[in-house]
Amino acid sequence: MNLKRIPGGVNAARGFLSATSACGIKRTSPTKGPLRSDLCLVVSEVPTTAAGVFTTNLVKAAPVILSRSHLQDGKARAVILNSGNANACTGTPGHRAAEQMANAVAVALGIDADEVLVCSTGRIGVQIPLAKIFPGILSAAVSLKASPAAATAAAKSIMTSDSVPKQSACKVKIGAKSFRIGGMAKGAGMISPNMATMLCVITTDASVPAAFLRKVLGEVTSRTFNCITVDGDCSTNDTVLTLANGLSRVAIRTAAERKAFAEALHAVCGDLAMAIVADGEGTSRVIELTVKGAKSEADAHKVGRAIANSQLVKCAWAGSDPNWGRIIDAAGYAGAALNPDKVEIAYDGILAAKNGTGCQDAKGEALLRKIAAKKKFSVTINLHLGKGEARLLTTDLTEEYVRLNLSEFSL
Amino acid sequence: MNLKRIPGGVNAARGFLSATSACGIKRTSPTKGPLRSDLCLVVSEVPTTAAGVFTTNLVKAAPVILSRSHLQDGKARAVILNSGNANACTGTPGHRAAEQMANAVAVALGIDADEVLVCSTGRIGVQIPLAKIFPGILSAAVSLKASPAAATAAAKSIMTSDSVPKQSACKVKIGAKSFRIGGMAKGAGMISPNMATMLCVITTDASVPAAFLRKVLGEVTSRTFNCITVDGDCSTNDTVLTLANGLSRVAIRTAAERKAFAEALHAVCGDLAMAIVADGEGTSRVIELTVKGAKSEADAHKVGRAIANSQLVKCAWAGSDPNWGRIIDAAGYAGAALNPDKVEIAYDGILAAKNGTGCQDAKGEALLRKIAAKKKFSVTINLHLGKGEARLLTTDLTEEYVRLNLSEFSL
Repeated sequence: MNLKRIPGGVNAARGFLSATSACGIKRTSPTKGPLRSDLCLVVSEVPTTAAGVFTTNLVKAAPVILSRSHLQDGKARAVILNSGNANACTGTPGHRAAEQMANAVAVALGIDADEVLVCSTGRIGVQIPLAKIFPGILSAAVSLKASPAAATAAAKSIMTSDSVPKQSACKVKIGAKSFRIGGMAKGAGMISPNMATMLCVITTDASVPAAFLRKVLGEVTSRTFNCITVDGDCSTNDTVLTLANGLSRVAIRTAAERKAFAEALHAVCGDLAMAIVADGEGTSRVIELTVKGAKSEADAHKVGRAIANSQLVKCAWAGSDPNWGRIIDAAGYAGAALNPDKVEIAYDGILAAKNGTGCQDAKGEALLRKIAAKKKFSVTINLHLGKGEARLLTTDLTEEYVRLNLSEFSL
Repeated sequence: MNLKRIPGGVNAARGFLSATSACGIKRTSPTKGPLRSDLCLVVSEVPTTAAGVFTTNLVKAAPVILSRSHLQDGKARAVILNSGNANACTGTPGHRAAEQMANAVAVALGIDADEVLVCSTGRIGVQIPLAKIFPGILSAAVSLKASPAAATAAAKSIMTSDSVPKQSACKVKIGAKSFRIGGMAKGAGMISPNMATMLCVITTDASVPAAFLRKVLGEVTSRTFNCITVDGDCSTNDTVLTLANGLSRVAIRTAAERKAFAEALHAVCGDLAMAIVADGEGTSRVIELTVKGAKSEADAHKVGRAIANSQLVKCAWAGSDPNWGRIIDAAGYAGAALNPDKVEIAYDGILAAKNGTGCQDAKGEALLRKIAAKKKFSVTINLHLGKGEARLLTTDLTEEYVRLNLSEFSL
């Protein structure tokens, strides 16, 4: 397989267009500057097969429930996304509002309402201002473009506390033909392994049967977006959507084609997941955490999440302190099988603890502190009990994170 | 029952003495000031029945393992506690060191080594400096006193990141007789519901059979120390010890006496648990969190812990933001049964959300913000599904918490 990163994000695949508008859903700044872009359409020129993965939180936002229902037939044509309001915990009026958003997009584009998927992100518990959204939909619908610039504008319009837009795309050659796959994502806070708090739209011009698309999206999500954690909070709105319109004339049928498509989807989701962690609210470091030698894969994930979500471990990382004591402490309360005397912990391959106790002299400790001061490093904990393994991407916990989350009024 | 708070802490009960010394286990300040008190003995003039509750972390410090073993016969006479070094993850030398500490106390006091219980707190993974500890034991052993001042000095000597010593004691009248019960505790970080990260020694001059002491200590701990959380991290060293020497000549035998003793123990443990939360590292608020109407008590605890340990909820509290959206989000991923449309959330009895959505106008929201700005307030979440209930004491998450935990070199 020949896989090459290309520009173009959500518009990289043939036949996908996007447009944005600034409707005033995001609160304007106190100084009354220009409105910020807060609504976005992603549309395929032709019908697509489609699949989605949604939050596991029992409290699900109205657009999550609507999009899941619209995806039951495995088909879609357009996605509307807004930032500034999550349309979550908004009761019956909220469900009606999500429906009306889909209806308005359908009317503006001349398609069926159940071909429209809806994603919202922003503050929970506030009714979404439909009167502002309807004109935004109409103005976006008449300015759809397939350009990379339009894709970047789309990625920017869904940002809330994100500091950078997040896009990825690649071109995959299979024999003489090629297909493209690309996407955009948002998310910086409320990020946790059971579906990161995020919205993600992935488009491809491969022709992919809906059933396989659903299966491969689930598998890839579990190994990318569901393996990142910033703050351990799993949101009400998490959504990953994939639309495949077939315009490349590459059909995904054989085992080799399926493998190539899965790898390409994994590449795009992996890029976007890393971009989300690297942009974690107020974070200063990305940590690649690997748990090895657990009794089972489930145990490995338990230990990984306990460590990655431990406030004390995350604070130590923020302070460049390679504190293996806090790491083994978190492993000990993870609820997984553990023999403290067998535990090994390493930073970038340098052992900090062996047989459950420290194993470095002053010189070695200085080296570990140097590693923990880097912007990005790996931590590996080996339990030496079995073959269970897990890999997570996580961050440190900084004073800046707390400052950013003292209230939500800025979103 | 007649229960009265009295001074005297761990020395309030007749026949209990304490003494401290400054051995240099705690790192001295860079300016080389006088050594800080870091070792403490609590001794009964006569043998006692005794019970202990220990950390559930699979990574247990050496003194935890030793004390648990010395308590198998339900008897004790003395406790040695040190701060500045946890003697956790220190391998075979660490286990030997805990034994040698008990042996040294036994020699100095002329008692058996298995009558000595050992508690350590401080940095994990560093060998404990026995050469500094032995002289400290000898000097403490010859200066034991029963005074309230000695009790306060003892409570101070076990502090690490604590900002205040934590003591409580009460006198209980049963008919014409009375007994006393008192104690001290330490703990401000690594505090989580499965045994707060803490050391606690409680003494009483009641005569309490060891089996009942064990039972009642477990029950009371589960409703006091195990219902507090500062940062969700459960430590390697958590220990609550209770010693009963019988010198009041009040024997706890009848149902009424057992009830009176349980209530007195609950009063002392409740005081100390509240003192720990109020002194949580860098915290600015104490929140009494009640979960009602859960399908089961276990579900109520799951929801309570998810909320109390949510970084986003805690940050909102630090910012005086009565953000019910983050609270319902945490409830939704707690792993408990939940119907979002039935959830009610109140601050100090004022409803913020009803039927899963906000229910206040601008005036009501201003009132909620006033409540969330207080030093102490209550949050009640009612799931309206059943009779399960849980009550937790917790704190906010501040920039100061992160600053304090960037590294452990100050402990």
